[in-house]
Amino acid sequence: MSRQVKLAVIPGDGIGPEVIAEAVKVLSAVTRESDVSFDTTEFSLGATRYLETGDVLTDDDLDAIRSHDAILLGAVGGTPGDPRLASANIERGLLLKLRFSLDHYANLRPTRVYPGVPSPLANPGDVDFLVVREGTEGPYVGNGGTIRQGTPQEIASEVSVNTAYGVERVVRFAFEKASTRRNKLTLVHKTNVLTFSGKLWKRTMDAVAAEYPDVAVDYLHVDAATIFLVTDPARFDVIVTDNLFGDILTDLAGAISGGIGLAASGNINPDGTFPSMFEPVHGSAPDIAGQQVADPTAAILSVALLLEHLGLAAEAAAVTAAVTADIAARTGEKRSTSAVGDAIVASLGA
Amino acid sequence: MSRQVKLAVIPGDGIGPEVIAEAVKVLSAVTRESDVSFDTTEFSLGATRYLETGDVLTDDDLDAIRSHDAILLGAVGGTPGDPRLASANIERGLLLKLRFSLDHYANLRPTRVYPGVPSPLANPGDVDFLVVREGTEGPYVGNGGTIRQGTPQEIASEVSVNTAYGVERVVRFAFEKASTRRNKLTLVHKTNVLTFSGKLWKRTMDAVAAEYPDVAVDYLHVDAATIFLVTDPARFDVIVTDNLFGDILTDLAGAISGGIGLAASGNINPDGTFPSMFEPVHGSAPDIAGQQVADPTAAILSVALLLEHLGLAAEAAAVTAAVTADIAARTGEKRSTSAVGDAIVASLGA
Ligand SMILES: CC(C)[C@H](C(=O)O)[C@@H](O)C(=O)O
Ligand SMILES: CC(C)[C@H](C(=O)O)[C@@H](O)C(=O)O
Repeated sequence: MSRQVKLAVIPGDGIGPEVIAEAVKVLSAVTRESDVSFDTTEFSLGATRYLETGDVLTDDDLDAIRSHDAILLGAVGGTPGDPRLASANIERGLLLKLRFSLDHYANLRPTRVYPGVPSPLANPGDVDFLVVREGTEGPYVGNGGTIRQGTPQEIASEVSVNTAYGVERVVRFAFEKASTRRNKLTLVHKTNVLTFSGKLWKRTMDAVAAEYPDVAVDYLHVDAATIFLVTDPARFDVIVTDNLFGDILTDLAGAISGGIGLAASGNINPDGTFPSMFEPVHGSAPDIAGQQVADPTAAILSVALLLEHLGLAAEAAAVTAAVTADIAARTGEKRSTSAVGDAIVASLGA
Repeated sequence: MSRQVKLAVIPGDGIGPEVIAEAVKVLSAVTRESDVSFDTTEFSLGATRYLETGDVLTDDDLDAIRSHDAILLGAVGGTPGDPRLASANIERGLLLKLRFSLDHYANLRPTRVYPGVPSPLANPGDVDFLVVREGTEGPYVGNGGTIRQGTPQEIASEVSVNTAYGVERVVRFAFEKASTRRNKLTLVHKTNVLTFSGKLWKRTMDAVAAEYPDVAVDYLHVDAATIFLVTDPARFDVIVTDNLFGDILTDLAGAISGGIGLAASGNINPDGTFPSMFEPVHGSAPDIAGQQVADPTAAILSVALLLEHLGLAAEAAAVTAAVTADIAARTGEKRSTSAVGDAIVASLGA
């Protein structure tokens, strides 16, 4: 009785195709002898596709992607400042459009300091936390506008939209995660300044907390949270926060854990109405593309998140263990992107 | 021919009065033999005052403060979670109200890693940068609202308001600062997501840059900026950014430079229409108040910024030198708040 998973693969731009090749290699290897098989469809999307066709993400693209069980994405975005991309916004038009259209309301971003990885922090301590970043609301909604553009009287606004519906479901999801981990949940916001949305987040947190008496909760302003991320990152278990704060905190988290070359993420639609999407936190890094120098580890760890999401816990654990072993064995010697993938595949059995 | 400076002093709450006592001590000492004298008026404002009188900041308070040449503020805010403060918002009602009413559009936050100060970073490098944080616009305007509060249909919004007028003046100010330093200015924003305000900031930056051909400019998304702050903070000279991003980046900057116990700030009204206000970046820390354990250095460095703002460059340099010497001589031995102030006063002449 074998299970078929329809996987949409979006290699994207820059180093995306290179890291995704390794991620797919690991995915095939780890599921070779299991009763699940992945039926992958590749989607050519991103800056390269836009420059060729003028399309960023069509309704047909979206429909086709939606019919899959999950999505694996490399990285999208062209060379910063490329004038041919000036009027396109690949980030909003592709990446955010996928996250919003597929209702990826829980963006999972785990951070660990792996043994053997040099952190920029002198004493990072035992770092192992998970950021649950809201993915469909907040300042990311694109709700805003400009009047008198280009004149001295220009006014540009951005509206952060926060709903009880949206906040509650992601807070609830974060409590669930915390209760499978170390039972600690930190809300990060800026309630003293962003009082309208802050009250909603805080009140929701308090209400849901009553249902999870075993989870200890605390609250930090976003500015204070960045301090703790560099002075005492080991204090965190699960963090729940809005879309923009989550964006900022997870890049910082990636940096302290030794670089966003290791940071994986899952854009989750917990309801299962739409396919969830897994991607490294890093960007397309066009400056180093095509040279086989990119580290595919974040993409491979995104595969582990994908496997876990699909309920394939043993396979997920195998990938994580192989990555951990590979990282611990690093000597500082440079390896090609595919050599890293091969090494991780080789240690999968071990 | 002596010059009189009318200084409003707001010691505030928690450790505020303790650190301000030392700051005023240093201010008196450094100007004792100069031809400028400070005529100080103390304002009792903050959580303590609110709990006594029910007032946060009255129009009379504001008028009285406005008639001064400058303001020195300790820290305001009561114990987090104090139910008696639940319906007051000391931050918005006092601190932000002062910044907005007095048109403090350039919030100056310098960061240095002083010799002898342990940084949480393994290799901070030679860190010496200045964040120019916009102070009167952005997501801090308090423009937002809530409908259906407390129901499952609640919607809470926050509007970030950005004007050509407001962005241009702070960008211009930042270029001026950069041109008196190492001629490098980095704009930090999130232009790929906050496209309306992002375009305004980017376009303004480009336009003003044309007038400052000697200043090299670059741009970072806020998430990437936090990465560089921990991996290569020495790359920065001047950063210009909006109110919220500036809040986040400067706490992080304080942390990497060895703690916000050393971080000073100036809320500047460059036009001189209203008094500028100088304050440590840290909060009121009610948990350690009244114990003479708070480090007054950030408040004392705020006095250096105040002196510089008033054109008293020699006095400002003397304070900075005395602080630098005091920091370098630290042995790790605990000193009382006033002992630190005394030591800095003692080395002022040296
Ligand atoms: C590329 C950009 C739109 C995106 C975001 O801001 O979410 C990225 O920074 C991320 O964190 O995945
Ligand atoms: C207390 C708070 C309103 C304030 C701010 O957000 O500006 C503080 O964090 C700061 O950075 O001065």
